[in-house]
This record gives sequence, C-alpha cells and structure tokens, in this order.
Amino acid sequence: MSFTIIEGGVTAAQGFLAAGCAAGLKKNGNADMAMIFAKTPCEVAGTFTTNRVKAAPVVWDRDIVSSGAKVQAIVVNAGVANACTGEQGLAYCRETAEEAAKALNVPAENVLVASTGVIGRQLPMDKITAGVRTLAGKLGDCLHDGTDAAKAIMTTDTVVKQAAVSVTFADGSVATIGGCCKGSGMIHPNMCTMLSFITTDACICKEMLQKALSEVVPDTFNMVSVDGDTSTNDTCLLMSSEMAGNTRINSENTDYTAFKEGLLDVCTRLARQMARDGEGATALFEMRVIHARTKEDAKVLARSVVSSALTKAAVYGHDANWGRILCAMGYSGAVFEPEKVDLFLSSSAGRIQILSNGVDTGYSEELATEILSQNEILCVADCKDGNASADAWGCDLTHKYVDINADYRS
Amino acid sequence: MSFTIIEGGVTAAQGFLAAGCAAGLKKNGNADMAMIFAKTPCEVAGTFTTNRVKAAPVVWDRDIVSSGAKVQAIVVNAGVANACTGEQGLAYCRETAEEAAKALNVPAENVLVASTGVIGRQLPMDKITAGVRTLAGKLGDCLHDGTDAAKAIMTTDTVVKQAAVSVTFADGSVATIGGCCKGSGMIHPNMCTMLSFITTDACICKEMLQKALSEVVPDTFNMVSVDGDTSTNDTCLLMSSEMAGNTRINSENTDYTAFKEGLLDVCTRLARQMARDGEGATALFEMRVIHARTKEDAKVLARSVVSSALTKAAVYGHDANWGRILCAMGYSGAVFEPEKVDLFLSSSAGRIQILSNGVDTGYSEELATEILSQNEILCVADCKDGNASADAWGCDLTHKYVDINADYRS
Repeated sequence: MSFTIIEGGVTAAQGFLAAGCAAGLKKNGNADMAMIFAKTPCEVAGTFTTNRVKAAPVVWDRDIVSSGAKVQAIVVNAGVANACTGEQGLAYCRETAEEAAKALNVPAENVLVASTGVIGRQLPMDKITAGVRTLAGKLGDCLHDGTDAAKAIMTTDTVVKQAAVSVTFADGSVATIGGCCKGSGMIHPNMCTMLSFITTDACICKEMLQKALSEVVPDTFNMVSVDGDTSTNDTCLLMSSEMAGNTRINSENTDYTAFKEGLLDVCTRLARQMARDGEGATALFEMRVIHARTKEDAKVLARSVVSSALTKAAVYGHDANWGRILCAMGYSGAVFEPEKVDLFLSSSAGRIQILSNGVDTGYSEELATEILSQNEILCVADCKDGNASADAWGCDLTHKYVDINADYRS
Repeated sequence: MSFTIIEGGVTAAQGFLAAGCAAGLKKNGNADMAMIFAKTPCEVAGTFTTNRVKAAPVVWDRDIVSSGAKVQAIVVNAGVANACTGEQGLAYCRETAEEAAKALNVPAENVLVASTGVIGRQLPMDKITAGVRTLAGKLGDCLHDGTDAAKAIMTTDTVVKQAAVSVTFADGSVATIGGCCKGSGMIHPNMCTMLSFITTDACICKEMLQKALSEVVPDTFNMVSVDGDTSTNDTCLLMSSEMAGNTRINSENTDYTAFKEGLLDVCTRLARQMARDGEGATALFEMRVIHARTKEDAKVLARSVVSSALTKAAVYGHDANWGRILCAMGYSGAVFEPEKVDLFLSSSAGRIQILSNGVDTGYSEELATEILSQNEILCVADCKDGNASADAWGCDLTHKYVDINADYRS
C-alpha cells in the first residue's frame, strides 16, 4: 500500500482554503454555504448525475470541466437544489460565480457551483451573494476550515463526512488527497454521489486526474444506495493544486496507480460514511459479493441487495431474513447460480454462516439477531462461480426515514 | 366496449369450483389453503416470475404450462413460499399434486400448485396433505366459494381481491372471465404478479389464451410496485373451461379482441386492488404518463415514479413534492424533455395543475394537500412529446410498512 490515512478533508492538501457560513437558507439557522478556494488555478475532474433532469449547477460545472478550463473555487449551498428552475436557475449559477469571482479576484469561468436541497425553488440570490462575500472573508487552510465547509453542505445528514490520505510516489515525494461529501436521502448515485469535493496537491495532468476519478467513482460512490432515488444534483469534483512537487503524472505509471489507490481509499471511506448516515439509518449494511462471474455481475448483485426495501427493513428488525437477500440477488438481472451461494453475516458481535449451497445451515437465530443488532453489519455472498468481487453500502429502512421524507418540505 | 363488469372471482365462469380452508400453516388460524377445480380439463396459460431464484411451484407449473397439457386443478398455500428449498421443495410440489390428484380423481400432471409466504422453509407436508383432502370435500361453484379461495391465499393482504366481467362475442354468445389475486409486500412483478388465478368459460385455443395473457400482464400486473422487490413466486394462471358455447377463438379476430379487453379489465382491477392494499398503504397512487414518445418510455416513466421511495413517502405526508416525481422520471432511463412536462394531481377532493412546461405553476399547496389526503390519488404527467401513454399503480410508504417488514418472521 502506497498511502497512509491522515486526518482532515478538503484543506488537507497544500494550496487549498475553505470556509462555511450560515447564509440564512436553512430555517434552523445552521451553516448552509461553503466555499473551497485554491491559491492557484487547478486542473479539475468531475463526474455528474446521469439523471435526465439535471440541476442548473450540474449543467454549469459540466461545461467548465469539459472545456478544459482551470478552476480556482467552488461555491456550494445547502437548502435549495436549484433543480427544475429553468433558465433563471442557470442565470443564478452565473450570478453566484460572478459574485465569487469578484470577491476572490479570479475569472467567473474558474468558479464552480453546487447546490443541494429542495427541488423546484429558485435560489434566494440576496442571501447567496451576501453568503459568498462572507465566505471569501472567512477562508482558512486549517483542518477546521475544511470541517466548517463539510458541515455547511449537510442537509438531512447527521454527521460530517471527510477523509484524507497521504500518498508516496516513486521519487520519494509525498502528496495528499482529501475530501468531504454530503448525502443522506435521494441517494442512489449514478456516476457520482450527491455532492463530493476532493482536493489534492499531487502533480497530475487533467487527463489522468479525470481517468482516476472516473475509475474510482463506479466502485465507491456509485455503490451506495440509501433509497434508490438518483438525485438531480449528484456531483463529484476533484481539484489538484500540483504543489506536492512530485514528478508530474502524465501516464498510467506506478505513481498513477499509487494516486488512484489513495483516491479509492478516500472515496470508499466517504461512501461508507454516507451510507452509515443514510436518512433515519441505525446501521451501515455492507454487502460483499465474492467469486462472481464478472465484476459487473458482482456489482449488480451487491447493489441490488442494499437497494432492497425488504432487506433494509429486515436489517432494521435485526431479522436474518436471508430469503430477501437471495430474492434481491435473483431479480438483479445478474448471472449466478442460487444453489451454489454461501451466505455469511458478521459484525462486532461475531460471524455466522447462514446458507451453504443455497440451503439454510440451521444457524442460530439468536446469534444472527445479535450480529444484526450492531451498527455496522457485513454480509458476504460467495457465488463460487468466478473470481470477481464487489462491495456495496446501504443502510436499514426505519420509521425515521419515513418521518423525514413524509415531512421534508414542511 | 364489449364487456360488462360483474360480481365474483374464480367461480364466476361456468365450470369452476373453489374452496378455502385453514390448514394450520398460519399461526393466527386464518384460512391458508385454497383449491380451484375445473369440471373438465382446461387449456391453461401462465406467466411466471423473472427472478433468477424461482420457487419450486413456479418450476412445477412452468413445466406443465409449457408442455401443453390440460389442467384441472390449482392447489395454493399461504404462509410458506416453498422457495430456496432445493430438490426437497420440488418433491413436495409433486406430493401435493399427487394428493390432490387422488382426492379429485384426475392425473397429477393436471394439477398446478402455488405458494406464498416465508422463503427458505420447507412445507409442513402433513398439514398440506390434510388441507388438500379438506379442500376437495368443500369445493363449491357459488360466488362465496370463490371468495373463500381468494381469502385463503392472502398473507399480509388486508382485503380480498377479485374481479370479473362478462364478454359478448360476435355470434351473440356470452363468456365470463373472473379472477382473484393476492399481493401486498415483495411486490414489483416482472412477468406477473405475486399470485393471480383467472378462470374463463370462453372457448379459446391455448395459443390465443396465452397470447392474450402475455399481452395483458405487462400493462397490468407488471405495472404495480409496492416495494421494488420482485418475488421468487410470482405466478399468474388463466384457465378456460370452454363452456360458454362461443365459436372457438383460434385467431386474432374481433372475438379475440373482445376477450382481451375483458381480460385487461379484470387484470387492471386486480392490479389496482393489489397496489391499494400494499403493505402498510393508506392510499392508492396511480401514475399516468401521457403523450410520451413510445409505449416503453411511458411505462418506464410511470413505473419509476410509483417505485420511488421518496415519492411514496411524500404521498404519505400529503406533500405535493413534485421535484421527487420529476426526479424519478429523470433517472428512469426513458427519453423525455423535462422542460416540456405538465403535471396534474387529482382525487375525489379536486384536480390541480402543479407544473407547466417543467415549471411550478404557483399552485395552492393547501388544495394539493387536500387532494393528496384522499385514499385514491391520480398523478398525470403530460410529456407533450408523442402519443404513447401508460398507467402504473403504487402506494405510499408508511411507518406500518416498516413495522410489517422489520417484524415479518417473528
């Protein structure tokens, strides 16, 4: 392993500042705007929602990321998604970027924007512009500044989600990758999660930066499901300040591999935090499929199980109702032989084999219930049919999820 | 319209008897076994789950239906699904059929079986065989006998689900089509619903019988979703006693069309009843997509909305959170232009336009909430992009759904 887990988030890497503030978008007065600022223009990579309904900020960012322009700031608001807001919504993205450009003395075309919250409402631009000015005056490069930004992008999230690593390259130089994300409901990312911002100081060309992100996202953020609803705003952005001093990564060499491994770790830990903090969740439910025929089969099987409402409700009830797990694998569309499957459950309370060759092992229901009563549960399905494996992350379906979502706008 | 809605279910058509009984499979002592018997051998059509994990009775029935054999009886149990039960489970299907064959004096190869309930447990064969004998002695051809059978196949269902029509053919003869179904959880049929049994006395060849069923099921049962979980046991069977005396339907003539229209009505009403009685549901949520580009697009869009956990929770909260509806259309994979969509909500409390060309109409939230507070709600999305339309049926996501499914096996 070429990386080490370190503390921090978006300000862990050299060259990045961040801030969060309460701009008045959230009724409860919590922080609701964040800014990430790079001292120098950065290469940027991004992945965006595949939802046909794309929020205005997704359209704005995608154009900038694909243009090849360098980027120096990201302005984020929580509370209003700026989705389904027509031409006006897109004009507000430009206005936000222009306000930030003025405050930060950079071109508006170097400013990305992101939004999360209720769909269909227009941004309150007076609050947004005031927020942008406040944020510009608060920027700092300490770990707590990154945490402030990570806090400010939360909606129904209950915990701050950050992760960082340091990566050592072949020439002995060390780079840092750090990020934050938010996501709790409407989480079933396709291309990317709700909102995730990652920074690095590694020297790496735009092509390799995008390649690393595009390779990592399908195995991390795209393997999370809270409720099967793919958002209109899913955005993952990765900026590099290139201040680490390593030999610039221009090809898929060993340094690229090291960078990608570090990025994979950051994204995996962010994805797990998101699933663990799913709306109303009491437990993280990790589904690991091993020895599947193909990687795609393994992924489809794992994701189908964590997306199953019945499986999620059974986890909530601490009920080892394995029929629902096998059923969800069965309707996933992936190829496997039900009569070959071994199934295991484990957590801090122990490990138990539930199925052997598709048949009940006569396991102890008591131990199974104890295992399922912990707040991090791993289920492993061994398909004994190949060499591919995949992990997916979900959570249980609880009364609180219904409370939160029956009552979201009121 | 060539059909008339009439009372009754599986015993509405000439030549069919039915019965239900409590065989002791359900802990609460409710009826849990049903039998449908035809006085003469019948042509039979069937559609079955596409889940890769297929319950033993699905395998048994599919072999008989595809063999071209005529059928004279169906034995159904509720409480144990006989899924993931290996060779033993299939042997128990044969044993059940043989017991029924003995009691009814027909060949075992003419007896279909169906099961619903917990996955992974073996059938208690002593209770099943005793139940088969009881049922054979109770068979009757009155409407209430059909209702008894419909009651006995319920699991978490709270109401009996039946529908029937009489169809008039070109030669003036009149045939009847009647059926029952069950389904409340693990409902997201693919090919067919949980369990549905339909009988008719129309004279119609096996090929046309199967064709009519195969054409009707995708627009009816397959457009229902309670929780997105496609069951291992989904089965829909259609038997014809050919006692109506009509000119035998051997081709896609006007009588075939009349028969299919009648069948469509029966299946549509059964599908609606199933969605309305979804686990924990307080409301039927009908999603109608009109003016879509293709029929497939319309269906995918409609089904995506009724499957969305967030939309379902919003319906429960009587919250016209249209962003979730448009979002679910957006991630469905179907082609449409979000900025063209008009959206309407209606119920017995009134009708309201929510969106015009993808933008909020500034509708009254009070009226919208009143409309959503009724127990049958219709949402219409006009895509203004073609001539295809489709209906899908779902229900709200409630605390009770979580209760039922966190607690199912205990």
